[in-house]
Amino acid sequence: MIKQTMRPRPKGRDAYRYFSSFATRWRDNDQYGHMNNAVYYELFDSAVNKFLIDSGILALAGDETLFLVASSGCDYFTDVAYPDDVEVGIAIRRIGSSSITYDIGLFLAAADTTAATGFFVHVNVASDDQRPCPIDSATREKCAALVVSADD
Amino acid sequence: MIKQTMRPRPKGRDAYRYFSSFATRWRDNDQYGHMNNAVYYELFDSAVNKFLIDSGILALAGDETLFLVASSGCDYFTDVAYPDDVEVGIAIRRIGSSSITYDIGLFLAAADTTAATGFFVHVNVASDDQRPCPIDSATREKCAALVVSADD
Amino acid sequence: MIKQTMRPRPKGRDAYRYFSSFATRWRDNDQYGHMNNAVYYELFDSAVNKFLIDSGILALAGDETLFLVASSGCDYFTDVAYPDDVEVGIAIRRIGSSSITYDIGLFLAAADTTAATGFFVHVNVASDDQRPCPIDSATREKCAALVVSADD
Amino acid sequence: MIKQTMRPRPKGRDAYRYFSSFATRWRDNDQYGHMNNAVYYELFDSAVNKFLIDSGILALAGDETLFLVASSGCDYFTDVAYPDDVEVGIAIRRIGSSSITYDIGLFLAAADTTAATGFFVHVNVASDDQRPCPIDSATREKCAALVVSADD
Repeated sequence: MIKQTMRPRPKGRDAYRYFSSFATRWRDNDQYGHMNNAVYYELFDSAVNKFLIDSGILALAGDETLFLVASSGCDYFTDVAYPDDVEVGIAIRRIGSSSITYDIGLFLAAADTTAATGFFVHVNVASDDQRPCPIDSATREKCAALVVSADD
Repeated sequence: MIKQTMRPRPKGRDAYRYFSSFATRWRDNDQYGHMNNAVYYELFDSAVNKFLIDSGILALAGDETLFLVASSGCDYFTDVAYPDDVEVGIAIRRIGSSSITYDIGLFLAAADTTAATGFFVHVNVASDDQRPCPIDSATREKCAALVVSADD
Repeated sequence: MIKQTMRPRPKGRDAYRYFSSFATRWRDNDQYGHMNNAVYYELFDSAVNKFLIDSGILALAGDETLFLVASSGCDYFTDVAYPDDVEVGIAIRRIGSSSITYDIGLFLAAADTTAATGFFVHVNVASDDQRPCPIDSATREKCAALVVSADD
Repeated sequence: MIKQTMRPRPKGRDAYRYFSSFATRWRDNDQYGHMNNAVYYELFDSAVNKFLIDSGILALAGDETLFLVASSGCDYFTDVAYPDDVEVGIAIRRIGSSSITYDIGLFLAAADTTAATGFFVHVNVASDDQRPCPIDSATREKCAALVVSADD
């Protein structure tokens, strides 16, 4: 398995298709005075689920299937710290039979390039027993607007 | 010591003098599907510190004194859940020689009355050894606009 | 309503009836280098729910009723910071028709007195519509061992 | 750049050299009733910093250099949920001139294989201006006991 053959670099806003805004919180800053590395994932999660809710894929009540995170990762470039406002952009790199891979970028509110970039692999599972399920065509259609080419 | 001789009740927006907005996050919801009780305090903390930063009381770099929370509390009235947007209002009930007592209210974005009300007692301490320090007159002046009468 | 007519003081371990241990986490420390005030409530919540699970009151699957926090509070006495180990003691001050009031104390692992003391008011509600429900006799019996007299 | 040419698989305890134990917390469980994906990173961070503190590399007071996370990732295999107890194992895959790459595994307390595996790339920076700094020989020596061969 080969990893990171190229050093990760910040991306521009045009790499993403759906944006959410978040205020940082006092507790986001850790002892070193900047947003703790785990908090980026909280914001990634919030942005991806916001897309799922806004697009009508996820109702958060009575859903027959839901998405669980099977893999995640983040490269950190620029310090972010409370009380910064941030925006999280998402795009979809790949839709498999039962999984979706999101590209995610976190921007300081006024910035053109990402302070951090990451990814989420979401697996579609049955709500009752969490077995992987094929992603239905309605969901695929709703996701289509976020799909980008896998050029990096 | 007598506590809660009157059942706490939601308050209106006019009980507060300074407002901050926050997007909720996926992780704010606990297993019961609504914002966990501890998260309210994260938002209280973020709102109070935002006031301190915006008003120039707290620089978060080289401050000779800082405020620590000596006491806090919250009454929860209405469910809040991701992806709700919320607003936190604060007011100052009392400025003592070295402490400030904040009244805090958390509102759903479109609501007229609080989903939760709480308080923070902040003690002003020296940054180096954390001994309590008198609150200086410049800080008292900046806080004056938030002071409300202690009528409840 | 009269509040805090007596200054709160640390308590000893004999004020509590059930103890849970927790390792602190790097992220528990905020920018001031000690455990953030909201984290105490995360630990209070974890200790109270651990009692409910251990005693068979809460199954976390198929429960007909559950407990929601209606009110909480904390007085902070002594600094706690990652990587400290802590213990949380709980006792029951009052069992009402549909609510339980817990006294909670957080101790540094080697300490005889609390670093912080707090309380939780839990309301028993129906899982489906969250209307308050009477606490049944089986639960009352299981809680009896934690009851202390309300002498402070 | 090629990623994930092999599907990640759980690892055994012998892949790790230093273990820390953590109790989960009520708030770790998200709305789906298991430990939220971001919380794994909180535990990774806590385990790595515990090693740094225990080995005398990090004093958390007056340090001339500190380690910041430049990259992180996690593959999730098995559900973890409050009130589970977990153990986090760490090993060092690579010590560069100014960075350390940790392999991290999270185990349910009684399990032989990881519930999740991840990594952290820590960069050594100056405390004052956060410029990358060479890792000194004393630190390299203390880290040596954790080094494993990069065979996967």
